[in-house]
Amino acid sequence: MEDWSECLDVAVQIARRAGQVVACAAQQEKRVSSKSTPTDLVTETDHQVEELIISTLRHRFPSHRFIGEESSAAGVKCELTDSPTWIIDPIDGTCNFVHSFPMVAVSIGFAVRKELEFGVIYHCSDGTLYTARRGHGAFCNGARLHVSRERDVSKALILTEIGAKRDPATLDIFLGNMRKMLSAPTHGVRIIGSSTLALCHIASGAAEAYYQYGLHCWDIAAAAVIIREAGGCVIDTSGGALDLMSRRVVAAGTREIADYIVKQLQPINYGRDDSDPDGLA
Amino acid sequence: MEDWSECLDVAVQIARRAGQVVACAAQQEKRVSSKSTPTDLVTETDHQVEELIISTLRHRFPSHRFIGEESSAAGVKCELTDSPTWIIDPIDGTCNFVHSFPMVAVSIGFAVRKELEFGVIYHCSDGTLYTARRGHGAFCNGARLHVSRERDVSKALILTEIGAKRDPATLDIFLGNMRKMLSAPTHGVRIIGSSTLALCHIASGAAEAYYQYGLHCWDIAAAAVIIREAGGCVIDTSGGALDLMSRRVVAAGTREIADYIVKQLQPINYGRDDSDPDGLA
Repeated sequence: MEDWSECLDVAVQIARRAGQVVACAAQQEKRVSSKSTPTDLVTETDHQVEELIISTLRHRFPSHRFIGEESSAAGVKCELTDSPTWIIDPIDGTCNFVHSFPMVAVSIGFAVRKELEFGVIYHCSDGTLYTARRGHGAFCNGARLHVSRERDVSKALILTEIGAKRDPATLDIFLGNMRKMLSAPTHGVRIIGSSTLALCHIASGAAEAYYQYGLHCWDIAAAAVIIREAGGCVIDTSGGALDLMSRRVVAAGTREIADYIVKQLQPINYGRDDSDPDGLA
Repeated sequence: MEDWSECLDVAVQIARRAGQVVACAAQQEKRVSSKSTPTDLVTETDHQVEELIISTLRHRFPSHRFIGEESSAAGVKCELTDSPTWIIDPIDGTCNFVHSFPMVAVSIGFAVRKELEFGVIYHCSDGTLYTARRGHGAFCNGARLHVSRERDVSKALILTEIGAKRDPATLDIFLGNMRKMLSAPTHGVRIIGSSTLALCHIASGAAEAYYQYGLHCWDIAAAAVIIREAGGCVIDTSGGALDLMSRRVVAAGTREIADYIVKQLQPINYGRDDSDPDGLA
């Protein structure tokens, strides 16, 4: 059985290279347009960096398949098969990137037979590198990562993200969920604008839980391996197994806190990545 | 007329030293207790670092006065007089600090005749230093800071913080204000858990505006100078002049965006710093 460590090494190299392109571009003027909603932003750099990553990997691994945020937005079908598949977000936190708000990451996940094998996340603003390979632990700049072991939600720091939909009904549910988290009570709620980096904070134990409706498979693929290898759980908002394509997730250091959050959440329907080829929010 | 540059130099030295103590302590186990509310946290490090800063400054400037977060919580009257006064937050983002969530700062402001003369903010997690002296510009690690010139709120990134009160009526208003910001529409809302660092993001142009009810004079004193010297405005939530003791603020790159936010906000009453010597939330 392959251990995919060669693929992981290549992923680390290309994530660093892509991250440096993003960090450089963050200092320049950006040309911004929107995708599914006026707040679902994209820049030329998102496209360039995705092209850089996919062309490099395709050249190296011609039989592999690719799922990328911008290819999917452009209409390429977002489908996870049994083939070795790279799942790529060239810029996670595009809105932050547009503002030069320093929470921006490159995320590269890798799945075989629909199982996540490794993940690489590069924090473009500060150069931090998060990596994990299934069964081999999670690391931040080479140091082993461990989730928080806190089981008491009243001592938990909770992370979430807003999602691209801002219609009144969606905001009702989003703010209602946030109210439940604040009145649990918890220590607090943070919104940093990058799902991927928020999930890295769960892996490092800097926060106890993350939940979101409206993220995509490329936001979660790499981070899911990193959190699991750091000892945490990544599940569906229903409490069942994570469905990478379902656009919803609960991640936590402990199952107790994950279960608490699952019980509190009211769902927001964002559709599925694999039935939404036109990139609807 | 004194230019207080000697005081600023000392402030930079002690902010760095204090920040390194905080960064070190962030890696250790913390002993946490609460102040005004269960979510208003304090640790031994908050006390130690405030004592370090104030004792150093008092030794050097024996005639000066001091306002510090932990001294105030301990009952020292929080009063701004005409005397040269240091306004100190030893750890801004204590809840983040407790979780080792990497958004924690030391904030040192300095006022004379009730006018803010300079501010120094040290980001403990990444070592970034923000400084400004009235009339001499604002700097981040020596590079000049400029606020965002965006005047269109639909292109704005808005920052806020939750505040220590979590009763249902306060949450109603907090979430109602957040809803207005999200449905303006704006690009988004971020909550990073440190008022001081959020305000630094306004100074650096990484976000267009910040508003909060429930912060304290030590959260805003240093940052107000830095934002103004970066070209931004820092005002009361009513649209009038900033009142350092009023526990409320709107800061923005442009007056247009500040005015928009002022018009949207419903107030939350947190009392005043100078009539609240027991540190009520």
